[in-house]
Amino acid sequence: MIHAGPIITLTTDFGHAEGYVGAVKGVVYSICPTARVVDIAHEIEPQNIVQAAMTLEAAVAYFPPGTVHLAVVDPGVGTPRRRIAAITDTAQFVGPDNGIFGLVFRQQPPQRMFSIENEALMLPGPATTFDGRDVFAPAAAYLARGLDPAELGPEIDDPVALDWPENSRDQHGITGAVVASDRFGNLITSIRREDCPAKVPSFVVQLRDRQITGLSSSYHDHGAGERSKMCKAIFGGGGYLEITRPGGSAMELLAVRPGETVRVCW
Amino acid sequence: MIHAGPIITLTTDFGHAEGYVGAVKGVVYSICPTARVVDIAHEIEPQNIVQAAMTLEAAVAYFPPGTVHLAVVDPGVGTPRRRIAAITDTAQFVGPDNGIFGLVFRQQPPQRMFSIENEALMLPGPATTFDGRDVFAPAAAYLARGLDPAELGPEIDDPVALDWPENSRDQHGITGAVVASDRFGNLITSIRREDCPAKVPSFVVQLRDRQITGLSSSYHDHGAGERSKMCKAIFGGGGYLEITRPGGSAMELLAVRPGETVRVCW
Amino acid sequence: MIHAGPIITLTTDFGHAEGYVGAVKGVVYSICPTARVVDIAHEIEPQNIVQAAMTLEAAVAYFPPGTVHLAVVDPGVGTPRRRIAAITDTAQFVGPDNGIFGLVFRQQPPQRMFSIENEALMLPGPATTFDGRDVFAPAAAYLARGLDPAELGPEIDDPVALDWPENSRDQHGITGAVVASDRFGNLITSIRREDCPAKVPSFVVQLRDRQITGLSSSYHDHGAGERSKMCKAIFGGGGYLEITRPGGSAMELLAVRPGETVRVCW
Repeated sequence: MIHAGPIITLTTDFGHAEGYVGAVKGVVYSICPTARVVDIAHEIEPQNIVQAAMTLEAAVAYFPPGTVHLAVVDPGVGTPRRRIAAITDTAQFVGPDNGIFGLVFRQQPPQRMFSIENEALMLPGPATTFDGRDVFAPAAAYLARGLDPAELGPEIDDPVALDWPENSRDQHGITGAVVASDRFGNLITSIRREDCPAKVPSFVVQLRDRQITGLSSSYHDHGAGERSKMCKAIFGGGGYLEITRPGGSAMELLAVRPGETVRVCW
Repeated sequence: MIHAGPIITLTTDFGHAEGYVGAVKGVVYSICPTARVVDIAHEIEPQNIVQAAMTLEAAVAYFPPGTVHLAVVDPGVGTPRRRIAAITDTAQFVGPDNGIFGLVFRQQPPQRMFSIENEALMLPGPATTFDGRDVFAPAAAYLARGLDPAELGPEIDDPVALDWPENSRDQHGITGAVVASDRFGNLITSIRREDCPAKVPSFVVQLRDRQITGLSSSYHDHGAGERSKMCKAIFGGGGYLEITRPGGSAMELLAVRPGETVRVCW
Repeated sequence: MIHAGPIITLTTDFGHAEGYVGAVKGVVYSICPTARVVDIAHEIEPQNIVQAAMTLEAAVAYFPPGTVHLAVVDPGVGTPRRRIAAITDTAQFVGPDNGIFGLVFRQQPPQRMFSIENEALMLPGPATTFDGRDVFAPAAAYLARGLDPAELGPEIDDPVALDWPENSRDQHGITGAVVASDRFGNLITSIRREDCPAKVPSFVVQLRDRQITGLSSSYHDHGAGERSKMCKAIFGGGGYLEITRPGGSAMELLAVRPGETVRVCW
């Protein structure tokens, strides 16, 4: 029989061209030698907390119970912002207190949260610039080894909220915003499948002066040429409404950036 | 003694900036807790099936027998294209039926292939946009656990062929095409070492109006300056003829794109 | 109790779009089935040995004793340059003899070094273009299995030095150079914290016609707007003096490239 060590996932904006990710992994393996470190994503746009929050929301629910999720997109490193560990029904989370877990916490609300302040569980040294290595990696590794999270520091109950657009729904539809684009050029909005009625007579998406009628079930274009000028609306794998362009990039075609208003009428 | 869990490799165009890769890994670990998930490549150009096929060809043969290879470059997701599992002498393959395994199957022909249709072995839910997570990851994880592949669905024997240039050889040489470039700027052609006679009096590569005489055994330039204007011909680690430029990018210098004809005369 | 296999880290310029990384991993797992392969970084700028050396320096010290570090940034592949294995107090290193371990060896001097020449421990075949797969991966995997490194080849004591700027310190300060930039746009210099007096009356960084007064402890800007035009000086997590720009890229603002002189006066 194979005994498998605890899983610790990593989600960062560290990239793959420097030693940041390696240092974090080294610390984890040194403290928790049986850990299995799993890369979720390291190319989050530098300091883009919303992108990190969406990445975690899309991935975390699929991991086995007991997984520890370490996430570091941390523009405030070195300032007095808090560093938190959160415990939910099925998983544990470690990272800066800046809203990075805001979308995950809607799925699985934290039962207890702690401010990481116990210096005995941090790496020693003068640096204030790399908490991913010196504070968060040790905390995650100790939790994976079974540490009582209350050892990390005092309990808190007021985590920083994610800067995320509120949708407003009325009789005729719902208004939200473009929140991100992905590497396929799809535009991802704040409107979720469950925000819309299950059965509607019509479904029209408005983005600037463009209207998209109907919902698609595939990114593919069944008719037409290779790179369509037509965009389609589709609920993506994460449950968000996306604007997609078969064979091309909707983001390039529409020249839309996150923040733009989007409306669905039914 | 250490018992090592089954290896499942991942090759995708999902990138490292979103939660797609993480969701796939989470599903695999949830179904097969002892798995060791190994990243081959996640920065395949979006929807570039040829690049994925070449990546798999370059890597798969080096893995231990019994490895499960999961590959998802899948422009047809959500359309009625098939999803397949293939069993060869030494490995198992899971992915869309679009030719992605076409080059690997020349190395190791599949003994049996199955169309993945058993919904009991898929993740539940309405999404039709992320088969990597909902269909392929479970199939790979169940195979790694020892599932009889016939459980996945009906057997098939007509996989979709890869869109790959046929070389034509004549008395004086061979004509092929540029099929890809790599991050070093090397141009990779469809001509393999075994397509050429072992001993030839001369070896001249023709690409557009340029001629390269002789074969090199190193990407390095033994003479000359730092960034040569001279290109060289070399058989790369994957066995394909490459056009390389010491200290620089052949692709940039020659402004050649995949599809361009290349000829070797001897 | 969980027995964890040996850790083999990878640091390369192979990228994530081709099969190079996968082939190396496959070889390692085939020779050492219990290995745990850990990615440090694969997006080192092609053939940038200094960047690889800094990446290793930033990560290696944090891994558990006994780790094997495999690093391949190898512009000289196919030429008669040596391939080395080095043994230090706590770790083993495998890679080309081009200075790639130069910064690590200042931290932990090698006790013994060997030139990898034993063809019985290499992959067979004609290729001279992919030593990462054919020479370095097998050597690392055999070392992880416990091979006596003297089996790899003859002992050497004259490794190639890294091409790295020497700082010059005088009564009033120290002169060094910009050696790299990172993905946050920070400019990293050759000046280390321990190169400067612990307590100084003033600390002024000179870069071209710009002067930065004082040392910061955070990349964040406590006052001012979102994207500052002011740069700050800070010792980063790796111990090097960095020039950073709150909310933006110092590299873009200053248009400075590695090689530029930097001076600190105190």
